Amino acid sequence: MNSSPPAPSIVVLAGGVGGAKFVLGVREAARRRWGGAGALTVIANTGDDAWVSGVRIQPDIDSLLYALAGVNDTVRGWGRADDTERVNAELVAFGAGWPWFTLGDLDIAMGLARAGWLREGLPVSEIVARLSRRWDLGGVRLLPMTDATVETQVVTVDGTMHFQEWWVRHRAEPYPLRFDNGPIASAAPAPGVIDAIAAADVVLVAPSNPIVSIGPILAVPGIAESLAIARARVVGVSPIIGGNVVRGMADACLKAVGTPTAADAVGLRYGARGRFGAYDRDARLGLLDAWLVAEEDAALAPGLSDAGLPTIVAPLWMSDLSLSADLADAALTAAGL
Amino acid sequence: MNSSPPAPSIVVLAGGVGGAKFVLGVREAARRRWGGAGALTVIANTGDDAWVSGVRIQPDIDSLLYALAGVNDTVRGWGRADDTERVNAELVAFGAGWPWFTLGDLDIAMGLARAGWLREGLPVSEIVARLSRRWDLGGVRLLPMTDATVETQVVTVDGTMHFQEWWVRHRAEPYPLRFDNGPIASAAPAPGVIDAIAAADVVLVAPSNPIVSIGPILAVPGIAESLAIARARVVGVSPIIGGNVVRGMADACLKAVGTPTAADAVGLRYGARGRFGAYDRDARLGLLDAWLVAEEDAALAPGLSDAGLPTIVAPLWMSDLSLSADLADAALTAAGL
Repeated sequence: MNSSPPAPSIVVLAGGVGGAKFVLGVREAARRRWGGAGALTVIANTGDDAWVSGVRIQPDIDSLLYALAGVNDTVRGWGRADDTERVNAELVAFGAGWPWFTLGDLDIAMGLARAGWLREGLPVSEIVARLSRRWDLGGVRLLPMTDATVETQVVTVDGTMHFQEWWVRHRAEPYPLRFDNGPIASAAPAPGVIDAIAAADVVLVAPSNPIVSIGPILAVPGIAESLAIARARVVGVSPIIGGNVVRGMADACLKAVGTPTAADAVGLRYGARGRFGAYDRDARLGLLDAWLVAEEDAALAPGLSDAGLPTIVAPLWMSDLSLSADLADAALTAAGL
Repeated sequence: MNSSPPAPSIVVLAGGVGGAKFVLGVREAARRRWGGAGALTVIANTGDDAWVSGVRIQPDIDSLLYALAGVNDTVRGWGRADDTERVNAELVAFGAGWPWFTLGDLDIAMGLARAGWLREGLPVSEIVARLSRRWDLGGVRLLPMTDATVETQVVTVDGTMHFQEWWVRHRAEPYPLRFDNGPIASAAPAPGVIDAIAAADVVLVAPSNPIVSIGPILAVPGIAESLAIARARVVGVSPIIGGNVVRGMADACLKAVGTPTAADAVGLRYGARGRFGAYDRDARLGLLDAWLVAEEDAALAPGLSDAGLPTIVAPLWMSDLSLSADLADAALTAAGL
């Protein structure tokens, strides 16, 4: 009785918690339209990665994995549901780790498994694949953007610090001058990333932080270039609604690059495909075939379209799975599906 | 009202669980005699060290630390009291680590703190000092034998494997041909080790496994040599009672070196000080000024003394702290204190 056409190949570029909500929406929208996720690949930011004592965390990968597996803590908004903090309390008692960065026991277990496999020499992408096999992710394949270590350092007026220190410990308050992903100019996309982009029918840019989540993905040499020549239509979703960030502190990141916290400014920073854009590492390539903004920003749409970026007004609040799926559906429609 | 003379400087060479019982006895005996532990230094074996997934364990150091701090699990005989295994269950679910090697959450926390500090480049001895500061150890200073990584590999008829794999996974069953501590010939004693031996009034060799616990300590270049010229008297306690090992599987280790499981054979393998001994890495230096054997082995004492190793019969069963202290007291007496 299922006569749905085959699902297209979808790629999503995503950061952590917000990206995860969007990816769940895409998976749900694909189920509605085609009865399954089909070939849905998420390319995740790894700039947030960090060592916390002996634990290797990949916050965006971990958030995506937990959400896709349905084991995320939806009340607290991060980590595993029903987690405890026994190990963390011990680390604090020993004076180890970051006292301002709390990890649950189940979170620590995953970061420990990762640390152990890194010690054995496994690449990050293989480790993500191993961790993913633990659960049924509903057909979604999760890829790190690169196997290289390109942790974001924040150069602030108070000195340079790891992104997590700036973000979690200092609540993004030290004024950021720039973000530095170290050796990213010599990093390679992880295995599967370029192939997924080349095979995609649509590429969706999640409403994640454009500077420290989507930014590092596009800064891995080869990714922006393959998006520029991909046959897929590329559709972005604004992380800014009515001049405010929906979650996190993206405004603190935007000010480092002189971009206003506004849906039009962020859209133009990504840039229209085939036109100038500021978003690849050499500031050459525009990214987007279409840009979704909220009803609160409807007044910005004509100007954006006039500027060469086709802009669609859509319901951007992902308050529950159904609304996230509605947003994802609008993005798929904007991609011509 | 305390007019005890000052406590002497005592050094104990020790392995893990059995070594910890003996060290507690020495601390208690020193309290009885001198009102405190004085300068009591434990030089611990690190040949059992291992990575379990991302956790760095030092089983002998950990057992000594837990016992000295009074947080050890005395029922189970290893690990921390009131521990849980939440993280371990997760590691198993991910297929990480060794499924035959279970670690408690509190154990994992300490091994994680250690792994984190190793990543930061701290030497093992500094890490042991940091971990020791967590608790009141009653005046005992715990030193690893070396900062170098010299994990014991067991060459067996079934192939070469890590000591923990041979011991825990295979119950020491594959016939051992020899034990190999890798680069130990170029290892240096940890800071403080040689100074403690030189300053000691007495050196006690705990009734630990003579091959894989005491053996690696004496194989670190400089330790056997400094013992040979130390002003301290060196007193050993037999780990064999009535032809049986008191705990563990020391007999499985002894057969690799062709030494019978007997109090006289082990004593002569350590050797009389100033005479030939098999125990340093070049099989040159005898270790002991005196050797304590159990009442069950009293018949062996005259022959040992005739062979040049002064042998004393003492109560060797460490069934409780009071008996362990009695044994330690006998060892101190044998050292002329």
